Amino acid sequence: MELIYLNTVWVIIAAAMVLLMEGGFSLLEAGLVRTKNAVNVTMKIFVDLTVAVLAFWVVGFGIMFGEDAGGFIGTSLFGAPEQIELGIELPGAAFVLFQIGFAIACVSIVSGALAERMNFKAYILTAILLTSIVYPLSGHWVWNADGWLAKLGMKDFAGSAVIHGMGGFLALAMAIVLGPRQGRFNGDGSVNVFVPSNIPLASAGAFLLWFGWFGFNAGSTLDASNASLAIIALNTMLAGASGGTMALLLTLFRYGKTDPSMTINGILSGLVAVTAGCAFVAPMSAILIGAIGGVIVVFGTLLIDRMKVDDPVGAVAVHGFNGLFGTIAVGLFDITDGLFTTGQSELLQVQLIGALTVCAWGFASGLFIAYLAKATVGLRATKKEEIEGLDMSYHGIPAYNELERFIDVPVNLYNFEETTGVTVVAPKAKTINQ
Amino acid sequence: MELIYLNTVWVIIAAAMVLLMEGGFSLLEAGLVRTKNAVNVTMKIFVDLTVAVLAFWVVGFGIMFGEDAGGFIGTSLFGAPEQIELGIELPGAAFVLFQIGFAIACVSIVSGALAERMNFKAYILTAILLTSIVYPLSGHWVWNADGWLAKLGMKDFAGSAVIHGMGGFLALAMAIVLGPRQGRFNGDGSVNVFVPSNIPLASAGAFLLWFGWFGFNAGSTLDASNASLAIIALNTMLAGASGGTMALLLTLFRYGKTDPSMTINGILSGLVAVTAGCAFVAPMSAILIGAIGGVIVVFGTLLIDRMKVDDPVGAVAVHGFNGLFGTIAVGLFDITDGLFTTGQSELLQVQLIGALTVCAWGFASGLFIAYLAKATVGLRATKKEEIEGLDMSYHGIPAYNELERFIDVPVNLYNFEETTGVTVVAPKAKTINQ
Amino acid sequence: MELIYLNTVWVIIAAAMVLLMEGGFSLLEAGLVRTKNAVNVTMKIFVDLTVAVLAFWVVGFGIMFGEDAGGFIGTSLFGAPEQIELGIELPGAAFVLFQIGFAIACVSIVSGALAERMNFKAYILTAILLTSIVYPLSGHWVWNADGWLAKLGMKDFAGSAVIHGMGGFLALAMAIVLGPRQGRFNGDGSVNVFVPSNIPLASAGAFLLWFGWFGFNAGSTLDASNASLAIIALNTMLAGASGGTMALLLTLFRYGKTDPSMTINGILSGLVAVTAGCAFVAPMSAILIGAIGGVIVVFGTLLIDRMKVDDPVGAVAVHGFNGLFGTIAVGLFDITDGLFTTGQSELLQVQLIGALTVCAWGFASGLFIAYLAKATVGLRATKKEEIEGLDMSYHGIPAYNELERFIDVPVNLYNFEETTGVTVVAPKAKTINQ
Repeated sequence: MELIYLNTVWVIIAAAMVLLMEGGFSLLEAGLVRTKNAVNVTMKIFVDLTVAVLAFWVVGFGIMFGEDAGGFIGTSLFGAPEQIELGIELPGAAFVLFQIGFAIACVSIVSGALAERMNFKAYILTAILLTSIVYPLSGHWVWNADGWLAKLGMKDFAGSAVIHGMGGFLALAMAIVLGPRQGRFNGDGSVNVFVPSNIPLASAGAFLLWFGWFGFNAGSTLDASNASLAIIALNTMLAGASGGTMALLLTLFRYGKTDPSMTINGILSGLVAVTAGCAFVAPMSAILIGAIGGVIVVFGTLLIDRMKVDDPVGAVAVHGFNGLFGTIAVGLFDITDGLFTTGQSELLQVQLIGALTVCAWGFASGLFIAYLAKATVGLRATKKEEIEGLDMSYHGIPAYNELERFIDVPVNLYNFEETTGVTVVAPKAKTINQ
Repeated sequence: MELIYLNTVWVIIAAAMVLLMEGGFSLLEAGLVRTKNAVNVTMKIFVDLTVAVLAFWVVGFGIMFGEDAGGFIGTSLFGAPEQIELGIELPGAAFVLFQIGFAIACVSIVSGALAERMNFKAYILTAILLTSIVYPLSGHWVWNADGWLAKLGMKDFAGSAVIHGMGGFLALAMAIVLGPRQGRFNGDGSVNVFVPSNIPLASAGAFLLWFGWFGFNAGSTLDASNASLAIIALNTMLAGASGGTMALLLTLFRYGKTDPSMTINGILSGLVAVTAGCAFVAPMSAILIGAIGGVIVVFGTLLIDRMKVDDPVGAVAVHGFNGLFGTIAVGLFDITDGLFTTGQSELLQVQLIGALTVCAWGFASGLFIAYLAKATVGLRATKKEEIEGLDMSYHGIPAYNELERFIDVPVNLYNFEETTGVTVVAPKAKTINQ
Repeated sequence: MELIYLNTVWVIIAAAMVLLMEGGFSLLEAGLVRTKNAVNVTMKIFVDLTVAVLAFWVVGFGIMFGEDAGGFIGTSLFGAPEQIELGIELPGAAFVLFQIGFAIACVSIVSGALAERMNFKAYILTAILLTSIVYPLSGHWVWNADGWLAKLGMKDFAGSAVIHGMGGFLALAMAIVLGPRQGRFNGDGSVNVFVPSNIPLASAGAFLLWFGWFGFNAGSTLDASNASLAIIALNTMLAGASGGTMALLLTLFRYGKTDPSMTINGILSGLVAVTAGCAFVAPMSAILIGAIGGVIVVFGTLLIDRMKVDDPVGAVAVHGFNGLFGTIAVGLFDITDGLFTTGQSELLQVQLIGALTVCAWGFASGLFIAYLAKATVGLRATKKEEIEGLDMSYHGIPAYNELERFIDVPVNLYNFEETTGVTVVAPKAKTINQ
């Protein structure tokens, strides 16, 4: 039997798992925002899964994996990415599917930090620019064999820098320009906490994300004969577990209560942090990396608050800070070249250069996209739209109508009547005092 | 290493993914109906996963894949489907499991169109008839090597016609006989919109469906050495993305708002439409097929409304219309025999005959089942049951009791007391004005 | 191509599916308990996925699979489980990941029975003791080739006894010591039914559990060349289907209504019951075993009620009773040694000894852990904490805030202000009468 058959099956399944992470992002974000914006964050993920997929297909893939020009940009395969010659035992189409999952994961990371106050059209613009140009460009530097960071020897196995760090810092820049949600910060510097709308839903998202992460990290081998495959999966498990453990215990000891959203973010932080090094570090190092990730997210979230940046789901601390940390951590814990494991510092220097470059690229691109959106479609929802909630403003429908038997559900559907000629009658609901 | 080992693992995993689509149907339908019927649609999916599985096991599989009689019906393997001799490198038991997933997917498609007003026992009857006779019979014609449509050369790789078209038109017939929900249409021809109860839940269903679809389409190879496997998975992704893109943009430009349920249905339509041709068309064709699917669902839904047929989740437009279209599209876009790709029209003629036959068979069977149910267990819920909601009427329990702290939850559990001798006391809930 | 490549991929995917079952447990339990405790059960599952994973990694794995001492306990591999030499074509790390999934499934089973009134710290203690000592010890007896029950010839393919029976009886013992929830039983012997908070959420959990079970049972082959692999998966499907069918029909005929939580528990009971024998019995036997499981859970639940034990999700009847039954059923239906299939009774005797020993070990350990918790961190929530709900008491946040637009959401976040120096302002919500 040929190895390529097994590789094809393996990468297709891994890709499906990565694509299911979109469901994870959607449920997580919908659970963490306020009810009135839960449809909107869901729709943003659907933008990733539809418009952004096509943008990456047509343009982005070629920039990322096309023939290299100057170590900087790809120049071929536009509109025909499956024709790539991989030089490994894997059909091009399987590789393309897997890369689609990676590209849109990057957008979904950004989505969370911009929740609850962004113009929906600005999000569509962001998703298109991110998957057609911004992500593929820095991705080219690191993951195209001819990219300049790849040639320097940078190690980012499954994308702590390329996806999480870049996405997290791009999100930070856009969140700064976008400004905080109405009522988030008070004049005296105090913070208003907006309670998440649906914790079980957010937890469902976390479970799907963790499940998909096995495809994300272990699938990045692209090759079932890779001797590290099992260790990669195990490291992914252990780092998630230790990240969650730290966040859970930290909130228990600091605040006397274990906080669910921080525990979830601790798990995700461990996963993000180990993503660069999962193939290069020992299990004990993975536990340590995850644990540090769990600490970083707790204090990173406070830092973001102090900076008066509003990140409704903690995406910057989870993906940005831990993407940066995880990439650097390879320079510390790599079995063959890490500072702590071997005393050598060359890899660490490369990792620092690479991580900082990619995160800075993300931040700069975020500023550019934000100002471009401001100048064109409009970056921010109007105050009225935001207060009403983006669900009604942009999608004409509330997330939950479970109260229909008790309360008049607000209905403001799209102008169906005028365009279709049929009359729409809102459901006649009883009021709660009936 | 033997290929059969890999094929076994591949088909088992793909089957598990297909079976998880039942969860997708359940969450999607529960999210799109009104709260008072969310338990009922969930229970219908559990009927598919329990009673219908056994019916297909005992009877249906033999009719579908048993020894052929006249190109029309299978005549062996009843009660022992795993004894099938496949003539390929795959154990019979793996094939059976995969086919179970396909058979019940067909029932779950029907479930949605009949939501919110059907007698629960009539649904059990429908599920049994569908999986033991109706679906296996037309399935035999197309997918048994000796079936008459198979011999004509009809191409339906993973079931645009066999599963989606047939199920969708069966659902249409039953929805017509069943009649619309109370208050759906007004005397003057206007339509009352019933707002979906839970959009995030519906989106969770969509994510599971998309994930499972990779198993559904790519798993239909039944063989990991199939050279098209990766392209099939990629085509599945691209068609879903383009279907969703079209629905999202169409609702945005027509109505000024992007509608979540239409976007979900656009994605599903792209997936349904590419299901017949995923192994036979190029990626660019898959994008086009998906895009057309996304347009069909938007206008098809309006058409169903105009016909005064009530389809609460849009199942007829998604599965019926796009199943029909997708099957015909193979005749247009097939790489070796398509009209647009090669100028030949023979395959197109076969596809037209096959698609129309299978859909007509579904429609006729739907009429038969509906009238049979009417004459026996009763097709429709009583007006009282429907107004109270099928959850309380048939299952004695509401879907959501999140208000227990605020509102007296209506409780009407089964007559537990009389049959068990223990007294049931309803939870003493505070009223909201306390 | 080497078999080990396929085995690695297979076991990693199966392990990821098993780990996704944690999401299944979480959503199922969160849906079945009352709203005010839904965050708490979610957090308990996160304890399993974080703290308990590390405890099993450091200590438990070595006790279970380390070098045997006296057929009773393992004595090596502590803190370095991936160094295990398996003697099969599989990397140690893949085996470890799979076993992590098994170990924490056992804790999650226990979680449900203790819901809604347990001290959160007592749960952390339970999870640590269970994964580091209790489960690994009896696991050693059965699944370590040198364990005393393994040497007797006990057959428990994927853990009806080792995981479900042991966990279920441990849960029973702890539930007895813990006592029932406030208001569960009346002085006159009557039972108060607490309505589940979210049936669609519970059903989502059931779907994930069933999906994961294919990895659980079929993955236990650890070897893709195992000739029973496909039959194992098929038996898993059929037993779940017949278990659910029986519970669905039983509740329909006894009570006139089909009960969703009982149907879900019927499915799970079929799955639990077939877990020991899935590799050893014929499909028809699997259907029968599942069907008996579906009957056991209906009457077992009544028995638990009669015993005045409070098990909010039915974990004892599902996992304990059916784990016991399923292990014994191997002695009845085993193709080569079963009483019913061959007339031999030796295996049955071994299965009885093994099943009873393991369940008794679980029960005794449960008593020990419960009294230890009582004497140290405190076993039970205070009356005040329980009435307020464990979500607010232990995690400072309610599960659902969907009413924020209508009702003042109760907010009692951790003392964020004092520890961080920033002021927290609760969201100013409208009251419903505004």
